Amino acid sequence: MKRILVLGGRGMVGKKLTKHLEMVGLADGDAFELTLHDISPSQGNENKGDPPRHLVGNLAMAAEGSALAAERYDLIYFLASIVSGEAENDFDKGWQTNLWPMWSFLEALRAQHRASGGTYVPRVIFTSSIAVFGGPYPDKISDEFIQSPQTSYGAQKLACEIMIQDFSRKGFIDGISLRLPTICVRPGKPNLAASSFFSGIIREPLNGIKAILPVADTVRHWHASPRSAASFLAHAAGLDTSRLDGRRALNLPGLSCTVAQQIEALREVAGNDVVALIKLQPDPEIIRIVAGWPEDFAPERAIELGFAAEETFNEIINVYLEDDSPSL
Amino acid sequence: MKRILVLGGRGMVGKKLTKHLEMVGLADGDAFELTLHDISPSQGNENKGDPPRHLVGNLAMAAEGSALAAERYDLIYFLASIVSGEAENDFDKGWQTNLWPMWSFLEALRAQHRASGGTYVPRVIFTSSIAVFGGPYPDKISDEFIQSPQTSYGAQKLACEIMIQDFSRKGFIDGISLRLPTICVRPGKPNLAASSFFSGIIREPLNGIKAILPVADTVRHWHASPRSAASFLAHAAGLDTSRLDGRRALNLPGLSCTVAQQIEALREVAGNDVVALIKLQPDPEIIRIVAGWPEDFAPERAIELGFAAEETFNEIINVYLEDDSPSL
Repeated sequence: MKRILVLGGRGMVGKKLTKHLEMVGLADGDAFELTLHDISPSQGNENKGDPPRHLVGNLAMAAEGSALAAERYDLIYFLASIVSGEAENDFDKGWQTNLWPMWSFLEALRAQHRASGGTYVPRVIFTSSIAVFGGPYPDKISDEFIQSPQTSYGAQKLACEIMIQDFSRKGFIDGISLRLPTICVRPGKPNLAASSFFSGIIREPLNGIKAILPVADTVRHWHASPRSAASFLAHAAGLDTSRLDGRRALNLPGLSCTVAQQIEALREVAGNDVVALIKLQPDPEIIRIVAGWPEDFAPERAIELGFAAEETFNEIINVYLEDDSPSL
Repeated sequence: MKRILVLGGRGMVGKKLTKHLEMVGLADGDAFELTLHDISPSQGNENKGDPPRHLVGNLAMAAEGSALAAERYDLIYFLASIVSGEAENDFDKGWQTNLWPMWSFLEALRAQHRASGGTYVPRVIFTSSIAVFGGPYPDKISDEFIQSPQTSYGAQKLACEIMIQDFSRKGFIDGISLRLPTICVRPGKPNLAASSFFSGIIREPLNGIKAILPVADTVRHWHASPRSAASFLAHAAGLDTSRLDGRRALNLPGLSCTVAQQIEALREVAGNDVVALIKLQPDPEIIRIVAGWPEDFAPERAIELGFAAEETFNEIINVYLEDDSPSL
């Protein structure tokens, strides 16, 4: 029985992962027991049955991480984070939330490793981000491109990656950092992330609601669906980490497309009337932020390691319709 | 009057910087006042006159960094660090010494920035290292090559770089991280760094002492003299950081050469009898460590920004003879 802990388990990715594990299971078919931890109490659309176990606590308190580490889970997903917009607007909160809990938790895992006589070496899977990169970019970002974050969020994610790599190199944990593409189409409501519109211009029209497009439709970006995000996380659980050759952060597969291509896909899937709900309303601040983002990757290592994502934006829209659309 | 603080001012690089500033001054010719801070009390071969001011304290205590920040120096050199071998052997001490004091000090500078109403934005120059890189490497490491440290020392230096970049981006400080080549020929005695032999095989024979070469003479590495290190630090003080385009860590110029080329240069400068004092005595552990190190760089950005180093190993040997040889 593999014991799995998901930190930040109540967020969107945590919910998708939970659903994936419940529906598909682990890649190796192992039985497992799932514990979800989050600062937010359980509410809304989670399963009401017995498993998974729900814990509520604040990882910013080192004692919380220590208590969780002491339970010696086999597999730990570290998804807990505040989003990029919030980390940028509140410098203190960003570093205190997105970096220090990782450090405290890694130290707590190291203490368990030592207490176990070196036998406890949990797999730790961390959701990093393409925000670790900063321009100017090549046409396609290779697996050997410099990390140079231009947001606090990206800086915090990169600092976490470095710690995970060093703790792993020393054998205290067996960690992997997954640099997720921008997740699209996110279910639910718009959030405060500058990237929110990439989902909004698809999701809102599909639900009969107007959507604002704050940037030119020539903007190109790097996407994967929530379903892909969940499958990345599940796949990483069974990865032979010796194949990472000491570079424990991976650029994941995704789809590079322009906003115009997103809109064309929406037209093909849902028709002109739906597309007509998108209103261009340029926002200089969002234009400025998005101009600094990566457009395209060549994630050869991750592909070789068996990670896969959607290949057309039509597929991404259909994933939303199948998994999340409230109208279905 | 520019007020300068050197943290770790009693180490080898700090001493070379002090000497450079006293002899050559700042690049812009400004008058300055120098304060050296170190955990080690003053001793040995420092100047005995009035300036510079010597302070003794431990930056691992956050209060020490806060007290120093409150003095609002215009220019701060952050050289304080333990060496790579020690950071690798003592994981706790490495992270506690090489990362957390940087964080506490940056936070203290941010508090001063806020208290000043945003007018206090000190230039902070940090000695990072080529240890932020990990193989496999291209023939020459470009300015856009991935950072993937394979030592705790490299991981700590990289984490510091990331913090400096984010604090600078936010305008709290005006920071630069300088990734120094391996400094050669280091004066004084061998230290515990795995790189110690690169200096030892030159320094000891020049002083009539036998030296051990623990690796094959085909090993290629990246070097600059202590004099170059001091000139890098002085040059960075006057740099227009807007030219860094948000990438505030620089690969510095150096000289790529093999151990065989080092030895040939020593023969040219000092003759066969001196070279005969080098004894090959392979050390599997040092061979293993050194195999993971960078061999060559193409540091185009730094060269364009006016940084320069030696172009032949003969020059590097002559710098040692002129600046440090106890026999002269």
